[in-house]
Amino acid sequence: VVEPSAVAATWVFTDHVLRCVLCQRTYPPTYGAATCPEHGSPGGVLDVEQVGTASSRGTGTALVANANGTAHGLPGRASGGVGLAPGYLARTPLVDAPRLAEDLGIAQLLVKDEGRNPTGSLKDRPSALAVELALALGYRTVACASTGNAASSLAGACANVGLVARIFVPAGTPAAKLAQLAAFGARVVLVDGSYDQAWRLCESAVREFGWYNRNCAVNPYLIEAKKTCAHEVAEDLAGEAVDWVSVSVGDGCTVSALYKGFQEAQRSGVLAAVPRLLAVQAAGAAPIVNAFNAGVGEVDAVVPHTTADSISVGSPRNAVKALRALAGTRGAAVAVDDDEIMAAQRCLARLGGVYAEPGGAAGIAGVRRARHAGLVGRGARVVHVATGSGLKSSAILGSAEPYPLIEPVLSALNAVMAEEARHL
Amino acid sequence: VVEPSAVAATWVFTDHVLRCVLCQRTYPPTYGAATCPEHGSPGGVLDVEQVGTASSRGTGTALVANANGTAHGLPGRASGGVGLAPGYLARTPLVDAPRLAEDLGIAQLLVKDEGRNPTGSLKDRPSALAVELALALGYRTVACASTGNAASSLAGACANVGLVARIFVPAGTPAAKLAQLAAFGARVVLVDGSYDQAWRLCESAVREFGWYNRNCAVNPYLIEAKKTCAHEVAEDLAGEAVDWVSVSVGDGCTVSALYKGFQEAQRSGVLAAVPRLLAVQAAGAAPIVNAFNAGVGEVDAVVPHTTADSISVGSPRNAVKALRALAGTRGAAVAVDDDEIMAAQRCLARLGGVYAEPGGAAGIAGVRRARHAGLVGRGARVVHVATGSGLKSSAILGSAEPYPLIEPVLSALNAVMAEEARHL
Repeated sequence: VVEPSAVAATWVFTDHVLRCVLCQRTYPPTYGAATCPEHGSPGGVLDVEQVGTASSRGTGTALVANANGTAHGLPGRASGGVGLAPGYLARTPLVDAPRLAEDLGIAQLLVKDEGRNPTGSLKDRPSALAVELALALGYRTVACASTGNAASSLAGACANVGLVARIFVPAGTPAAKLAQLAAFGARVVLVDGSYDQAWRLCESAVREFGWYNRNCAVNPYLIEAKKTCAHEVAEDLAGEAVDWVSVSVGDGCTVSALYKGFQEAQRSGVLAAVPRLLAVQAAGAAPIVNAFNAGVGEVDAVVPHTTADSISVGSPRNAVKALRALAGTRGAAVAVDDDEIMAAQRCLARLGGVYAEPGGAAGIAGVRRARHAGLVGRGARVVHVATGSGLKSSAILGSAEPYPLIEPVLSALNAVMAEEARHL
Repeated sequence: VVEPSAVAATWVFTDHVLRCVLCQRTYPPTYGAATCPEHGSPGGVLDVEQVGTASSRGTGTALVANANGTAHGLPGRASGGVGLAPGYLARTPLVDAPRLAEDLGIAQLLVKDEGRNPTGSLKDRPSALAVELALALGYRTVACASTGNAASSLAGACANVGLVARIFVPAGTPAAKLAQLAAFGARVVLVDGSYDQAWRLCESAVREFGWYNRNCAVNPYLIEAKKTCAHEVAEDLAGEAVDWVSVSVGDGCTVSALYKGFQEAQRSGVLAAVPRLLAVQAAGAAPIVNAFNAGVGEVDAVVPHTTADSISVGSPRNAVKALRALAGTRGAAVAVDDDEIMAAQRCLARLGGVYAEPGGAAGIAGVRRARHAGLVGRGARVVHVATGSGLKSSAILGSAEPYPLIEPVLSALNAVMAEEARHL
């Protein structure tokens, strides 16, 4: 493993310290995956804290996309370095959805479609950075535990550069996600247990075999990649304020990253105000929602039960950061039933034209709940972060009515349409 | 239906005529779907021919992306018009794939990843335009026949604006593509027959019921949207020449559109030279390859047999334009076996990090063939257009080896790794 000083020469990303979210003590940069020596894992997650002001941060963290479309705010790669191909990680769009806004009873809904990332989810951002850091540090293997999206994103990024991806997924991960892993040539084990058990096994294996660790709850750098989602939203808003940003929550890392990104965007003058964050969890896996609404700083682990596999997390690893993000933005937290999530997936597709996986649509169900509860007002402008593509999930397949099979003649079509008309 | 003059007031896209590819006669703009009155369908496909020079074309067709990321070169929408949400159709990236270039024995491979489009394929471009034109013309329903991607893209774009999508797909379309249609609320019939039979039924239904026609072989405007793929590639190349652009071919519309887009880019000075086009078809559905290599101007229809469902076309509707694109660029045409296509899909994912559907990866198999045949040289710079996402296809599922299922303990992982090591 290369020493940090050697890395600093390759990377623009330099002036920062790592601060424990529990004891606030600071530690020097490592570029590796680490938690607080005092508070360990889980709990003692570190936070990358940049030294210096926004204006003195330099090109590596400027809120400006570069010519290759590499996400901004990332530690930049110095010229000549090896790493991910230019173009691999590109900007995702913010899609206006006026029909869905009307259905939700709000003034505007903008969907940040993270399904447009290279392997179809927001997780492509941290995976891209993990792979770049692993390369810079001289690792050959990068590991993660994942309900699916972190896994496929890591597999894709590793394939692009030629690193080995070691993936720990819980048994029951959707077939389409496993197919992606197979396509990218990842080394996969299905763990006969929960996501939490897969996570712990991965941590043991990382220590045992000396792999680079792509788990967000341990690797403090990954949030620096996730926050670029907020930077892009802020830029696309072009100075216009939004009231709420809704996002589904599993481990709590993404909502924390959005908070950090929006804070930076505000400090840089890109955004006038940090929007309020609406954290949405499945009712069967809502430890962060429960803790926030009970006003307590620690979460009680639950045994997760939800069809939204990408947010089926019972022991969230970044709960402290997530709860701070909600408190810091005068945010809110709502739990939604699986039925509401599936209905939200249909609404987002049918009224917005964005086909997200259930976990990626859950935030829409949350907006509807928050609207009914009066938290979100009729005049609200809301951004929803659709965290992953619906093509990754077969959950909707069961709910699709069978289509009529007809002979290739007009009379057969007429019969189908007559039948349709009877049911309208 | 609104008269063309009313449309012209709404749209920037004005000064053009429609020219029959067979008799070269010109007709005035219709903004609807039409073929040559003399030569009908199939055969008498019209071509949108802009009147005036590149410099006088105005904003509607300028080779510049606008702030919303709407593809350039499209007929622009005047302010205040209804239509697709800003951000829906965004730019797709050009991804460098040095490991795959090395494997193919060429100097550089750049992958235009069309899987990043809103519903995961290049077809999102023409569907977006079809929906905008249908809205402007006052239609409520848009119809297409499709092997899958045109269908899901039309369903998504219609959902975004609130039009009805009428879809005719051949039975046997992959389940993931049908799930997308269900999600978007499209009206679908499975036609018990080939794609060609589904296509003919759709044409009859469009005439019978007065729907807007989103079939590329009949609607001359759709190629104006497809060509923006070439505009984007040209811009991303930033003046550097490439030798070849490889793309899979079904109906022949996409390869024709690339030709048109690259010609425009060259005339505008964005690109120094139009690259040579490499048309790749599955060996079991290769009528255009056969015709080009035999040096004849007309294709013989075949009964298509290939697992690459998105290019399984036996009676290509845009063969004349496609053959001209190949001739006009000193291009080439190769047919590849299904085994080569599946291997290409794996290589593109494992060595490039881009997971494309079989039809979207076929061009890679074509580059390999053309390299072996000496058509493509060792020093060649090649762009491959990956036309659709691999998440849309379950074809790879069968080829994925089953993953080991283990207890969540390190000893179980050790056993798996020991087994792996024995097989290396």
